[in-house]
Amino acid sequence: MSTRRVPDNVPTPAEDCQSLEEAFKGWGTDEKKIIRVLGCRNASQRRKIRDTYQQRNTKSLIDSLHSELSGDFRKAVILWTYDPPERDAKLANEALKSRKKGINQLQVIVEIACASSPHHLMAVRQAYCSLFDCSLEEEITANVSLPLRKILVGLVSSYRYDKEVEDLNVASLEAAKLHDAIKAKQLDQDNVMWILCTRNVCQLKATFECYRNNYGNPIDQDIKNCGKGILESILKVVIWCIDSPEKHFAEVIRGAIIGLGTDEDSLTRVIVTRAEIDMMKVRGEYFNTYKSSLDKAVVGDTSGDYRDFLMTLLGDKI
Amino acid sequence: MSTRRVPDNVPTPAEDCQSLEEAFKGWGTDEKKIIRVLGCRNASQRRKIRDTYQQRNTKSLIDSLHSELSGDFRKAVILWTYDPPERDAKLANEALKSRKKGINQLQVIVEIACASSPHHLMAVRQAYCSLFDCSLEEEITANVSLPLRKILVGLVSSYRYDKEVEDLNVASLEAAKLHDAIKAKQLDQDNVMWILCTRNVCQLKATFECYRNNYGNPIDQDIKNCGKGILESILKVVIWCIDSPEKHFAEVIRGAIIGLGTDEDSLTRVIVTRAEIDMMKVRGEYFNTYKSSLDKAVVGDTSGDYRDFLMTLLGDKI
Repeated sequence: MSTRRVPDNVPTPAEDCQSLEEAFKGWGTDEKKIIRVLGCRNASQRRKIRDTYQQRNTKSLIDSLHSELSGDFRKAVILWTYDPPERDAKLANEALKSRKKGINQLQVIVEIACASSPHHLMAVRQAYCSLFDCSLEEEITANVSLPLRKILVGLVSSYRYDKEVEDLNVASLEAAKLHDAIKAKQLDQDNVMWILCTRNVCQLKATFECYRNNYGNPIDQDIKNCGKGILESILKVVIWCIDSPEKHFAEVIRGAIIGLGTDEDSLTRVIVTRAEIDMMKVRGEYFNTYKSSLDKAVVGDTSGDYRDFLMTLLGDKI
Repeated sequence: MSTRRVPDNVPTPAEDCQSLEEAFKGWGTDEKKIIRVLGCRNASQRRKIRDTYQQRNTKSLIDSLHSELSGDFRKAVILWTYDPPERDAKLANEALKSRKKGINQLQVIVEIACASSPHHLMAVRQAYCSLFDCSLEEEITANVSLPLRKILVGLVSSYRYDKEVEDLNVASLEAAKLHDAIKAKQLDQDNVMWILCTRNVCQLKATFECYRNNYGNPIDQDIKNCGKGILESILKVVIWCIDSPEKHFAEVIRGAIIGLGTDEDSLTRVIVTRAEIDMMKVRGEYFNTYKSSLDKAVVGDTSGDYRDFLMTLLGDKI
């Protein structure tokens, strides 16, 4: 379900490195060439390019991109060039270190924990330790206050069973536990944490469906009705990232685009992190929900090389 | 710090498999040969033997050992032959599925979570999912009641930073938090959980030392004085497994041996799981604490092939 196009005849990593070196050479930078090379390679091809570039040059590809590019374009290309676990570790660190820690920042942690494979989440935790001299969960504990700390530590610590197994008795039982907590407006109950942090995705989907059937409303709606605090907002993101990540990411893109100005960081993050996972689904969801085209919205709200790069990841030919 | 001896000239995996096949052949089984081969190979050599055996035979090496051997000897050889993450996943499962879930069973989970490397713990969680169709933390949630559930889920979910970094301010601050919780006899406070489940081992050692300096007693002693429940016992095992695993394992061996009868399961577990990690230290600790030789204790309390196998793992030449 990737939108990023890889050409039929992919050049060797050495050829790609040569193109990049040419693009960096002299006074100007050939941004189009950089987009044509990096924007059209998958994660394993990009890793090979990074490795080969490092062998051929005195500095890393990331460093070169940093000194040759600028602005939102630079940020997007660099995020795309990192190894995905390293990229997500950096995104999590940025979110946890930012002065403001609202839903816009903290949802990044939820996306990594709930909308990735268990294996990827483990790799992100390993990368976090390598990059930042402490564990991701220590960083959360140090930077996020209760009750969000509890749910975020629980979520990033999860290693969910990743096969499609569900037990309808468990679903019914745990839907009831969730309903009790929501009715009592005690969303930070240990019961809620355990269910959301340890159950596998397939089981949780069954539990959420059971909730709707037994209690009338979708669970995210009942959570919303508990209050307008950040705990409610985070739990809604948790439910969406587990139940249908494309809904969450379509909403983030929408939020980044509508209104005055554009939230480039969020727009870049979603397109870069989901281009190789479920961007087709996000695009479909966006169209169904907002009755307009995601691609047109991106084109309308961005410009220059930054726009060209995002559109390349969205599958545009350049 | 391994006690297990690997010969200077190790036969190839194919040669070892041939020796094992010969040992299995005909009516009797040549147990000594099995001990000589498997007991004197390290984890990666054993894995190669397992793989080669599988290619050469219609059944797995584990299945062959199961049908050729019996009793405690069989159990020990099979545990030793598994890949370490698979072995620990099986030990954890056995502990969680046993009817009695006292300290003897639950401490197995603590050993895996607190006396292993973060990387090994992740591998155990992956193996658990592959073997048992649910995650380790789901199994704990389903089988262990509060407040132990909370601490065990937290511990197995940890991925501690594994470099030697400590912050003495954090140590002092968190020693105070632990002291407050112990004074209030609220050992299951979230604060206690976060400290024990997210901090790296080096930091925790500094915190425990700080505790002793600031409040007079070692923290494990103060925890013991809180009560004689299983929570206190488990927390003491947590502290020991983090601070000096050899103390914990020497105590388990002592408990398995003294008194009427022998607890073979515990004895086997400690020797098999620590032989390649810190058995030399455990032996030294045993001698210092109990003023007697661990090796003599094992020889005195076991017999036959089982004894020979354990003694081989302890470094005896056979």
